[in-house]
Amino acid sequence: MAVIVQKYGGTSVGTTGRIRAVADRVVAARQGGHDVVVVVSAMGDSTDDLLAMAHEVTPAPNPRELDMLLTAGERIAMSLLAIALNAAGYPAASYTGSQAGIITDTSHGRARIIDIRPGRIEEALGRGNIVIVAGFQGVSTAYDVTTLGRGGSDTTAVALAAALGAEHCEIYTDVLGVYTADPRSVPDARKLHAVSYEEMLELAASGAKVLQSRSVEYARRYGVKVHVRSSFSDEPGTWITEEDVRMEQAMISGVAVDTSEAKITIEDVPDRPGVAAAIFGGLAAEAVNVDMIVQNVSHGGVTDISFTAPRDDLPRLRAAMDAVLSEVGGVRWSVDDEVAKVSLVGAGMKTRPGVAADMFGALAEEGVNIEMISTSSIRISCVISSADADRAVKAIHAKFGLNTEAEGRTVHTGEVPAIPPPEGP
Amino acid sequence: MAVIVQKYGGTSVGTTGRIRAVADRVVAARQGGHDVVVVVSAMGDSTDDLLAMAHEVTPAPNPRELDMLLTAGERIAMSLLAIALNAAGYPAASYTGSQAGIITDTSHGRARIIDIRPGRIEEALGRGNIVIVAGFQGVSTAYDVTTLGRGGSDTTAVALAAALGAEHCEIYTDVLGVYTADPRSVPDARKLHAVSYEEMLELAASGAKVLQSRSVEYARRYGVKVHVRSSFSDEPGTWITEEDVRMEQAMISGVAVDTSEAKITIEDVPDRPGVAAAIFGGLAAEAVNVDMIVQNVSHGGVTDISFTAPRDDLPRLRAAMDAVLSEVGGVRWSVDDEVAKVSLVGAGMKTRPGVAADMFGALAEEGVNIEMISTSSIRISCVISSADADRAVKAIHAKFGLNTEAEGRTVHTGEVPAIPPPEGP
Repeated sequence: MAVIVQKYGGTSVGTTGRIRAVADRVVAARQGGHDVVVVVSAMGDSTDDLLAMAHEVTPAPNPRELDMLLTAGERIAMSLLAIALNAAGYPAASYTGSQAGIITDTSHGRARIIDIRPGRIEEALGRGNIVIVAGFQGVSTAYDVTTLGRGGSDTTAVALAAALGAEHCEIYTDVLGVYTADPRSVPDARKLHAVSYEEMLELAASGAKVLQSRSVEYARRYGVKVHVRSSFSDEPGTWITEEDVRMEQAMISGVAVDTSEAKITIEDVPDRPGVAAAIFGGLAAEAVNVDMIVQNVSHGGVTDISFTAPRDDLPRLRAAMDAVLSEVGGVRWSVDDEVAKVSLVGAGMKTRPGVAADMFGALAEEGVNIEMISTSSIRISCVISSADADRAVKAIHAKFGLNTEAEGRTVHTGEVPAIPPPEGP
Repeated sequence: MAVIVQKYGGTSVGTTGRIRAVADRVVAARQGGHDVVVVVSAMGDSTDDLLAMAHEVTPAPNPRELDMLLTAGERIAMSLLAIALNAAGYPAASYTGSQAGIITDTSHGRARIIDIRPGRIEEALGRGNIVIVAGFQGVSTAYDVTTLGRGGSDTTAVALAAALGAEHCEIYTDVLGVYTADPRSVPDARKLHAVSYEEMLELAASGAKVLQSRSVEYARRYGVKVHVRSSFSDEPGTWITEEDVRMEQAMISGVAVDTSEAKITIEDVPDRPGVAAAIFGGLAAEAVNVDMIVQNVSHGGVTDISFTAPRDDLPRLRAAMDAVLSEVGGVRWSVDDEVAKVSLVGAGMKTRPGVAADMFGALAEEGVNIEMISTSSIRISCVISSADADRAVKAIHAKFGLNTEAEGRTVHTGEVPAIPPPEGP
């Protein structure tokens, strides 16, 4: 029997009533003739509640023990779902990350999956069980419980789908799919039928929050077809798959915005070999995640270097900056944390000249100043003032006709407004 | 370094503030020169809260999955305690029942420990860690998570103390120790300094709730010295140990009351061989836990049989009774659920005649009618009307002078009033 993996996020299992509704959906998949493996997140805000308790004890909880604590959340959700399925007459058994064979490295709080040993899951499926697996967690090579970081349940689901050779992986969430832009700022944004792994990766990296980059990267590496859809609706969502012939017709997938970064500028840096390596090596050593980097041409032997980094990393950045500057001889540096990165993503732009010019034109017509530009073969990103972000997205979305179903499939993204759950918490 | 095992109950770890207080106590033991293994229960009422969620899903949750759910409670408490200890500068690591090597049979919800493989615990102690272990849980021979039933954390602690060759096992609870009677009904009840395993077993079986019988049985089998004391006080509690010379001087340990049982009477049962086997075999098959059994002498070839059983078992008993009666030919049966069992326990009564007579005399002087009597070598139990229970206990307590420190050590028992925790939940 073909296996499908379904993953339900925290909102989808936020109450015992919602868990019963999820059980109905799982049963439907089972009745549809599939072996079903279900990956669950913790109920609603329970992970945040556990984290708050840890912080009542100390501001800096021991990482191993924090992982032990947080994994209680999925344990509760998964056993309640298994209870609901058994009560409905469908044999179901739940497994922790460790029992499911999710083997990780030893980086507590942000562990990476290094192996999947799904023997117990396959055996349980073989006995006719629906299998429930705790998302977000695994067991390390040192036999300790680990967590995969925020959004890790998506990665658990995709990794299990790959290991089990699943037909596809369904990611149930509180939005209907991937949109051409965030419908909260662009009311005529459309839901995409499909998007390629590469586009989804660029979108996730550009601020679309519907899926974590890691899970998309995993899906791409193992060719797992992912269907992102809402657990509050029967409507089809968005497929994330290999680029296909039909997709080639599309030019642009969508517009994404990221307002979580700050722009840092270092002025009058001596323009000699090794300067960039010194700056960014120094920041990497302090675990500052640098995103875009722009270096201007040299004037009089000095240049300016600008880059973006998560605002959350600013405390570490500030601590590292003096050492970095003393090494490279830079003089002044400044932080602008009122910036936004607007990105246009589309597999079709590889073969279509003029996309960048059209995007810059849309911004110019709105009077939006571009502070930095960075591109990949399927993405163009501009850093602008955060005050301009909303107007910029609307203008770009309209410029590329993303609101109309042009060229077969058009395209997508961003965070999408939650459809209210049918019942309270 | 000598190992001590400490166990903290749900009230003792009911809030993050209480968990920090427990950490201080653990640190004191560590500073006192011991290797410390700490067994924790779930915080406050969290096990009941998890159970309530399961019952929101279905009235009869799947037992394997219910165990998976309930074990989340200890996981939360133990990791928070480990976080508190690490924050205080004391390396500490928490282990689930499975990680700690608590191997059980496969009876979900009431599993029995069949082996302890404390390799990881010993290794962690060897590295200088304080070790925290989840109480109440283990892993079955089928690799599934199991729970040991209510009060199972006491058994976890005693079993670990035995496996680790601990100096002793401290059971921290919300009462000061074991008393000569329940101080809520007998204000002059005294806390006992020590009590033998056998006496504690009889007391636990007679309604004293301070320790579960299973943990006492385990302690007796492996000779583990147990110190029952309050986590809200530095006062010494009650030691449970082998009977010693000093203890021989004591006659009576205490008076216990059990109001959780009902009395069932079957009238006009034919007095022939095999009747009792048929009745109690039939009830055992329906998992009715029969306690006291009394059969009167035969009159005219028929007799009456009375027995007590937990009121919780009455639904199963009623379902089984017709089949039982049709097999033995009994005619009428009745249930009286307004009874109490009052028990007098003391190792010294083995060698002192007249104890039973004194107890019956105390009841007679109070005008309390005795409905059933059952004895062991160190216990006398009388079933009386539950309306008389309070007066009966006071009368017996006074009759044996349990309020005075007579004969070196005197005696004890019962549930003891909680000392209010220093902070709210």
